[in-house]
Amino acid sequence: MDIAVIIYILGYIIAFLGGFMFVPATAGLFMGEAMISLVYACCGLIYISGGILITFHKPKNMNLFSREGAAAVALGWIVLSLLGAVPFVITGDIPSYVDAVFETISGFTTTGSSILTNVEGLTKTSLFWRSFTHWVGGMGVFVFIIMIAPMMGGQNMNLMKAESPGPDVGKFVPHVRDTAKILYRLYLAITVAEIICLLLAGMPLFDSITLTFGSVGTGGFGVKNDSCASYTALQQNIITVFMILSGINYVAYFYLITGKIKEIFKVEEIRWYLGIILTSAVVIAVNIRSLYGSWEETFRHSFFQVGTIITTTGYATTDFDLWPSLSKFILVLLMIVGACAGSTGGGMKVSRWIILTKSAIKELSLVVHPHAVKKIRMDNRAVPHNVLRSTNTYFVIYFMTLMASVLLISIDNFDFETNFTAVAATLNNIGPGLAKVGPTMNFFNFSAFSKVIMMFDMLAGRLELFPIMILFFPQAWRKH
Amino acid sequence: MDIAVIIYILGYIIAFLGGFMFVPATAGLFMGEAMISLVYACCGLIYISGGILITFHKPKNMNLFSREGAAAVALGWIVLSLLGAVPFVITGDIPSYVDAVFETISGFTTTGSSILTNVEGLTKTSLFWRSFTHWVGGMGVFVFIIMIAPMMGGQNMNLMKAESPGPDVGKFVPHVRDTAKILYRLYLAITVAEIICLLLAGMPLFDSITLTFGSVGTGGFGVKNDSCASYTALQQNIITVFMILSGINYVAYFYLITGKIKEIFKVEEIRWYLGIILTSAVVIAVNIRSLYGSWEETFRHSFFQVGTIITTTGYATTDFDLWPSLSKFILVLLMIVGACAGSTGGGMKVSRWIILTKSAIKELSLVVHPHAVKKIRMDNRAVPHNVLRSTNTYFVIYFMTLMASVLLISIDNFDFETNFTAVAATLNNIGPGLAKVGPTMNFFNFSAFSKVIMMFDMLAGRLELFPIMILFFPQAWRKH
Repeated sequence: MDIAVIIYILGYIIAFLGGFMFVPATAGLFMGEAMISLVYACCGLIYISGGILITFHKPKNMNLFSREGAAAVALGWIVLSLLGAVPFVITGDIPSYVDAVFETISGFTTTGSSILTNVEGLTKTSLFWRSFTHWVGGMGVFVFIIMIAPMMGGQNMNLMKAESPGPDVGKFVPHVRDTAKILYRLYLAITVAEIICLLLAGMPLFDSITLTFGSVGTGGFGVKNDSCASYTALQQNIITVFMILSGINYVAYFYLITGKIKEIFKVEEIRWYLGIILTSAVVIAVNIRSLYGSWEETFRHSFFQVGTIITTTGYATTDFDLWPSLSKFILVLLMIVGACAGSTGGGMKVSRWIILTKSAIKELSLVVHPHAVKKIRMDNRAVPHNVLRSTNTYFVIYFMTLMASVLLISIDNFDFETNFTAVAATLNNIGPGLAKVGPTMNFFNFSAFSKVIMMFDMLAGRLELFPIMILFFPQAWRKH
Repeated sequence: MDIAVIIYILGYIIAFLGGFMFVPATAGLFMGEAMISLVYACCGLIYISGGILITFHKPKNMNLFSREGAAAVALGWIVLSLLGAVPFVITGDIPSYVDAVFETISGFTTTGSSILTNVEGLTKTSLFWRSFTHWVGGMGVFVFIIMIAPMMGGQNMNLMKAESPGPDVGKFVPHVRDTAKILYRLYLAITVAEIICLLLAGMPLFDSITLTFGSVGTGGFGVKNDSCASYTALQQNIITVFMILSGINYVAYFYLITGKIKEIFKVEEIRWYLGIILTSAVVIAVNIRSLYGSWEETFRHSFFQVGTIITTTGYATTDFDLWPSLSKFILVLLMIVGACAGSTGGGMKVSRWIILTKSAIKELSLVVHPHAVKKIRMDNRAVPHNVLRSTNTYFVIYFMTLMASVLLISIDNFDFETNFTAVAATLNNIGPGLAKVGPTMNFFNFSAFSKVIMMFDMLAGRLELFPIMILFFPQAWRKH
């Protein structure tokens, strides 16, 4: 491991973090919280200067191998969270540092699981920063998708398809800067569009901006104790639409801006994603009909909750923990399914499930036709052997992480449903789970040990397991 | 699919079933239940004559391809259960046919999940038959391991290693009859040994025989409402030992009778299996210490429960549903781990977990050393590529079956813990789960629909998923 180059990258990240802190500092000034604003501005200044100081020491060798890339991105997210949590403690908004780090990791990983028992008790500036971490985290996800994921074993993220003719990730690298630019412009455009829509629907400016950060980043921190329950039906529906748009593979927008709209619905992942949303929402609506006054209300809640869970956002318009078991378990399944690859959403990702389902069917049909030679295809292209293998192993490591985490946090002696969904909600970067971590509850009551386990899960889920795992590989730290 | 040959095999199976029914019929006579005994004898006669009648029509082509083998074994287990359930209904012991079939499938698949609310209310003859189905099922598992499993994609069951020098399954086929003979002798020897031990420990003959059927078959049907709670400490410990011995890879006994005792502890699966049992039992003992009067009692319960769950037997000496979450979740993990391959136990099997763990570690180390070429080895032999692939896919199909079943039975609106552990307990052929299907509860309250789902799970788990799945593949039913 070349540690010098990693430190150099971390310096840049710290300086960036400092810059980002002037956003809540400025917002705080407008909202009349001068002292709080000052705290953020000071932290910002310190981080910028500290970060730049670190980058003065430029390493000789700037080659980034996959293990350095993976370690840098994992450590980057950790450093962001450790430093980003500081103003929460100084302002007294979250007095415990462990809790503040939990909340900040939850923000930057776009999870949305909270330890706050009274969200509305925070200063507006800290609420703004809390939501803004989602938006920054969402941008970080795109860095991860473009730069790191291809290094980790060629998960084809579909993004290059709209740009380059071949499926070869290697050829795509020279275009990385262009792709990144387009992605960030799209991300910004969706952000602005949602803020405008929410403002037009009569939502206050502060709520519009913070909720938009939470939905385009698929995060889920709200600014009210009831999450999104007290907004109007129109406002809720707007959020539903933008959540679903944020969980879609961004290749859709590449096609959109190049005018190839028909192509969007030919992408298998997008078809499955929309199909799963529609099916789940309809089944849930029928199942929960008796709980609500009208079909309009029923469908609004069912689409909102399905959208918020599959995109791994984590808002709520109703206490879905009171729903019947069938609907609740559909939500648990959606937690595990996750959003599309090539979006800011988390979870296993729809495309991985497509590959796993197709290879399961292939294996079964091999028993029927032992000598049949059949390639697994996706979007009319054969899925390469190493992608199949790494998808299978990904699932195994995912499952083992899930089970090991549930085992460790069950030391706190909460019930099975709480433990299982708490881990599912953090590992898949969703936010709330069920029972004692349901949408009206929070993660405050877990022990510090369990909170650390779930911080690890949030990072592991966000970084697609491998980068965070290899930090624990002694071999990885040896010199080349 | 060559249906004629399948029907021919089913004829044999039905005739065998008829023969087996004379065992409870005889036992019933000794216990003074002449009328009940007559019912079993009549059913036995009808099945024998019916079965023989079917085999009169000998198919021209007797070649058994893998799909016919798989379908025959799946249909065999189903027919056994459908017909084996009849005397329960006629004697009035289980009036509902659906419930009787559930109980019989649970018996032949060596699961032990019961719909009976009052076990002690049954006639002794039916209780005997119920336990005897476990013993017959255990014999069936060996047929499956020797004949069918190698056809399904070469899961190396380790059994041949002690006999033939090479790992090639093909070379082993001529020895099938010899291996089967040795296996059945071992099975019988362990059965007799346990009965004698229990008798010497002062257990009544009826209990000794039925409990032995349940433990060597890793089934779990007891003859008392409190399962094994009211037996003496010594009797419970004897059962613990024999359960663990029955969940071990039978290759251990091949080594034992050939005098190569050292070799037993060189088999990786056996080392892991014993290691998991020891670790789990110690952690649980520390966790539950405050619930029991002495360390002796604590360790007795912890070893019994760990043994009963990992071997997928399903007896109980205490209501482990009252244990703290950590201990309960360890039991849930043991449900999923399962026993050794090459035993009568169910679950995913320890050897599959070894392979999955090793391939996960290999994939992670590939990130650190992208160009390293490393083979996955087990017992000092490289694991072939197709075994790796089929193990991975097995896990995916296993997980999907688990989740789909939980989804479907949650229509009954029981809680998450009940639903999840009910499916885990049936799919892994264990018996009791937690909460509403805990060791003091039963499966009676589920709807007929959910019972059918769990019957499917018991069969799917017992037959290692593939044979039962391909019955639903339309292609499989086409002519060659």
